[in-house]
Parts: sequence; structure tokens; C-alpha cells
Amino acid sequence: MDIAANVLLALGASPAMVHAPEESGEFLGLADALVCNIGTLSRTWVESMETAATAAQAKNRPWVLDPVGVGATQFRNQAVERLIRLRPAVIRGNASEIIAIARNAGLTEQAAHAKGVDGFDTADDAHSLSLALARSLRCVVAATGATDVVTDGTRVVRLSNGSPLMSRVTALGCALSGVVGAFLAVTDDPFKATLAALAVYGVAGDMAAARADLPGSFRSAFIDALAAIGPADLERASLA
Amino acid sequence: MDIAANVLLALGASPAMVHAPEESGEFLGLADALVCNIGTLSRTWVESMETAATAAQAKNRPWVLDPVGVGATQFRNQAVERLIRLRPAVIRGNASEIIAIARNAGLTEQAAHAKGVDGFDTADDAHSLSLALARSLRCVVAATGATDVVTDGTRVVRLSNGSPLMSRVTALGCALSGVVGAFLAVTDDPFKATLAALAVYGVAGDMAAARADLPGSFRSAFIDALAAIGPADLERASLA
Amino acid sequence: MDIAANVLLALGASPAMVHAPEESGEFLGLADALVCNIGTLSRTWVESMETAATAAQAKNRPWVLDPVGVGATQFRNQAVERLIRLRPAVIRGNASEIIAIARNAGLTEQAAHAKGVDGFDTADDAHSLSLALARSLRCVVAATGATDVVTDGTRVVRLSNGSPLMSRVTALGCALSGVVGAFLAVTDDPFKATLAALAVYGVAGDMAAARADLPGSFRSAFIDALAAIGPADLERASLA
Repeated sequence: MDIAANVLLALGASPAMVHAPEESGEFLGLADALVCNIGTLSRTWVESMETAATAAQAKNRPWVLDPVGVGATQFRNQAVERLIRLRPAVIRGNASEIIAIARNAGLTEQAAHAKGVDGFDTADDAHSLSLALARSLRCVVAATGATDVVTDGTRVVRLSNGSPLMSRVTALGCALSGVVGAFLAVTDDPFKATLAALAVYGVAGDMAAARADLPGSFRSAFIDALAAIGPADLERASLA
Repeated sequence: MDIAANVLLALGASPAMVHAPEESGEFLGLADALVCNIGTLSRTWVESMETAATAAQAKNRPWVLDPVGVGATQFRNQAVERLIRLRPAVIRGNASEIIAIARNAGLTEQAAHAKGVDGFDTADDAHSLSLALARSLRCVVAATGATDVVTDGTRVVRLSNGSPLMSRVTALGCALSGVVGAFLAVTDDPFKATLAALAVYGVAGDMAAARADLPGSFRSAFIDALAAIGPADLERASLA
Repeated sequence: MDIAANVLLALGASPAMVHAPEESGEFLGLADALVCNIGTLSRTWVESMETAATAAQAKNRPWVLDPVGVGATQFRNQAVERLIRLRPAVIRGNASEIIAIARNAGLTEQAAHAKGVDGFDTADDAHSLSLALARSLRCVVAATGATDVVTDGTRVVRLSNGSPLMSRVTALGCALSGVVGAFLAVTDDPFKATLAALAVYGVAGDMAAARADLPGSFRSAFIDALAAIGPADLERASLA
């Protein structure tokens, strides 16, 4: 939550972290977008996410699902299954998580190569399943990693910005889902919003890697880069 | 919690983060002051805060209420209403939160301009209501922002230290409430304790802003400044 | 959790933070080691730790107990008493926590000198009780601080690396327990694993202290040092 909030504040967004089912639906009324992240899951938090996503659906606000560690336990599989029914605009995960969802949805018998919350699959492994999942769920799917795949089932773009250091700072993937949410709040087309979020994030990773080569200082440099990034920097966005 | 604990350790305080109603009352017995922060609220945490604040009242230990996001949901309004009855020594919030409490208390019909946990009101907007609230509740009220207002209902001081970068690092307001608590633990007069805490915090913000102009590096520089600050630095404290 | 995860990622480990009793046992099946930390305790988290530690025992996976703040409240004493029955391979705490456990176990009438989660006892205070506790529980006991004592009840080693700044960054002790877990996952002898973990951690502290003398920048420098440390650096490990 700390890094996600700092990433969003660096970009000029206005995040709030809300967990209680008693208020998550009402709080949604104040938000332009919602992100549900199952990283540190509990029964009550799942309930709270369902309440918020239901409110988002009712109010036509876009929302992002980050299916952290799906496939690791039945509890996570069930949480994702329930949340997916509430029609996220975007699912953003690592390639292994996207494969696990596709498998749980009966779209493939391909197994994901993951350990807990870390995935070992690549954009190539997840490419065609991202398309299939996007078509099946009618949402945008982003499988991110060294190379990212973004698709709405019709359009597909691959990006290859960012640094290996990004996987050595905890929760930078989760924070990216927050950024996708922030871009959804100000962009009508969820596919373009997701693509823009990933481009900004990856280029900021490149900028930070030019300043810091170890994960402690990289973390600060990355937040700095997100606050400093401008349109000219985005010319570095690299289609793969 | 992470930044609040690091801020307090930098200043030489000894923080402990306690959430369980099973132990919050007993733990209070070990503490010289208590801070209740409703940022990431849950039903159980409210119960735990009530238990701790009740114990603080019984043992005559000063406590601080940080009413994060009050006004955003009924759940937050109710939590603040219940906690206020337990007689905090200090309420520390942004100007919009102070206005929201004053409105909930029937002291005004003025509306707060907030979105979730971010407020858009200023010291001028909250000045007279801070006084009214302090008189009504017989406690110190601090409405902090670009300019801070601190009052015990009789005395009023305004301070204008700090940097806009402080609102781009998550939970620095929450951490400030922790610092107020630490100063309450070693100062008899809650008004002076609050004023001193705000002066130290704001000047440390100035010192950090002289070293870092982006939020990632500012966060580290700010913690460094809190650890390095001395009496001479406080001559920079700026009455507004 | 944030600093613990970043410390582990810097060292090349693959951490996952899991809290729900619904999945902690199943998730254990994916882990090579388990760390139970009672820092920010709740009833549900204790239940989740018991489920995970029971699964660890059944599957013969080593696990570490970090008894944060034991002695501060009955709730913490009871949690530790229940967890200890599930046979941790290592108990890692500050000297005051180790003394408190020994006292609760009836091994001494010596009182611990602690305040909440901060301890004021030294390696000398805890030396003989660490041995007694290790023999009684048949596990490795590490009482860490300015000087660390590590013992399996027969072998005893003392180390004196690290910097006073380490106690001014929150949760670095908790993160050290995570590192002990990571070393247990790849080392058969829990005593050697614990010793190696403490040596790496302390030397990284020395390396960071050579670069940063205030806690904000020290935190980043410490993570950097953990990512950069190599076998040659370990020649600095200082037996005390």
C-alpha cells in the first residue's frame, strides 16, 4: 500500500486505501476508478472488494483487477472467480497469473510456472491466452514483465521498457495496477489507458535505472522519475 | 504505519503499532501517549481504538485523534463521533477534516472541500471553526496544510513551514499526528506540545526540500532531517 | 512487511506475505521456509500462524518465530506460548524478548527490560538464558542487538557487526527474521543458517553505515548493501 500510494501521488493522482466492507461501497462514490488487489488477502477484504466492485458496476466506474498469486491457493482462485463476474475493465497481472486465470476459466490446459506471488512465464507464454481471456471476458488484459502484452481481444501491443530491478522492489507490479486505475479515471478507452499507464511506468523504470543500479536507491529514483516524467520522455517507449 | 514509525524513530521516540482489541487497552499501560488514526479503518480497529482511548482516559494519558477522511463516509463519521467522546487532548487533521468534524458537531453549515482522504480547504477556511471546535470539545485542534492553525480555543498560532512535496509522500500527515503524540508524552501543555511538534515537522520539511526536489528522494531526506534537526534549526519556524 | 519483503528481494529470495487462515496452510506447501512474526498481531493472524506452522511441522519445513513485544501483553505471551508448541527451528528476537520467553517458560525469574516492542537488555543479559531456552525447546535461539548471541544449546557464537542506525529504521529486526527464514530454506543446519543470516545482515549494516549516517538514507543504503554483498565482504564478520 505504501509504494502504491507513493507511486500514485508522484504521478499526481489522489489515492485512498479502503478495506472495510462497511464503507467500500460508499467510498466508491467518491472515486473515479477502483483497483482491487488480492495481494494480502483476507475473507473480509474479499467481501469489501466485492462491495466496491458491485458499486463500480452500478455507477459505471471502470475498475482494475490485480489477481496477485492467483493459482497459488484455492482461496485466491475463488476470490478471482467471484471478482471477475463483476466485470473489471482491465485485468493486470504477471504472465503466470494471466495464464492461471485462463486455465481456471477453462480456456487452456497450459500450466502457469509460478511460485507463490512470483511468476516465471513470459509475454510469449501468455500472448495468445491474453487475447483469448480478453475476448472471453470482454475486458482489457495486460500481462506484464520484461515484455508486456496488452490487448482488448482485438488490438494487441507489446512493450519492452523497464528494468530487471523493478522485480526486486516489492509491490511494483501492484502499484502498476494502481497506475492503470489512475489512467482509466481520465481516459475513455480502457485499452489506451492501460497502454499509456504501462508506457509511463516502463519509461520511468528506464529513467530510474539510469540513475541507480541497486534496489534500495532504485526505489527512490523510480518515484522521482514518475514525478519528473514528461511527454518527451515517452518517445523512449519501446514497442516489442 | 511504516513512515509513521520511521518518523518517530528518527526523532528518538519509541513507537509501537497495536491493532487488536484483545491487547490495545493493556498495551496502553506501557505508553506515555496514544494516537488513534482512522486512515485504514475496519470495525475491529475502531473497537481497538475505543478500548485504548478508554484506557488512556482512565490512566490520564494524553491522546491524539487523526480523523483521516472524516466526511467521506458514514463509517468514518461514526468512528470519529465515538472517539471524540473519549476526550482526545489533540485533534490533528487537514483543514477539510477539521471543517467536516465541526459540521458533524453542528457548529457550522460550511461544507468541507475534500475528495476521499485529500482536502482542498486552507487554514483561512478552517481558522474560526478550529477555534469553535477547540472550545466546544475543550481540546487542542490543529488544522495543518501549507499554513497550519493550532488553537486550544484561547491561544491561536499559525505556522507556515514545510514544502508542497510533503503532500506527495503518502501518510506524512498521519506521521505528524504520531509526532504530536510523542511531544505530548514529554510536555505538560498540549497546546505547546502540538505547536512544537508542528514547528519541528515543518522546519524538517524545509530542510529536506533544500536537499531534494522530487518525492522519492524527499522522503529519505525528510527522515534524515528529522534525525538531524536541532534547536538552532527551529529559528526558521515561521509564524504566519 | 514492506521492508521485510524488500530486504528479502534484495538478497534474491522470493517472499510472500500471507495472513488468511483460509490459505496459510495451503500456501505453506509452496514455501521452503516459514516466518511467523507477531508484530502487528490480531486474533485471526494468530490463527493463521498456527495453521501455517502446523502445516510446516507436518511437511518438515523449517520455521522461524519472531516474538515481537512478547512480555508486553498477555495476548502476546499466549500467542508465543501456542506457537512455541509447534516447534520452531529458530527463535529470533531482541535480548529482552528472549529473556521474556525464558521467564514465561519458567526458566528464570530474571525480568526483561523492555518497553513495548523496544528492548533494553544486552547479549550479556541474555547469554545464559539463550542457551537454557535453546536446550529446553531444542531449537536455535538468536538474541540480536549491538552484539548477537546465537546458540543451539551446545554451540554458541557471538557476533558484533551492524550499526546503531539499524534500530532507528522500523522493522529491521523483523526483516532479519525473514532473512533467517531464507537461509533456513537453503541450509540444512539451522544453527549455521542463522549464523550466516546474522553475519550477512550485520556486515551489510556496516557497509550501509559507511555510506549513510542518518536513518532515511541509511534505509536505502542498507537495501543496496544486501543486494551488493558478496563472499569477500563477509570477511568483515566480527566474532565478539
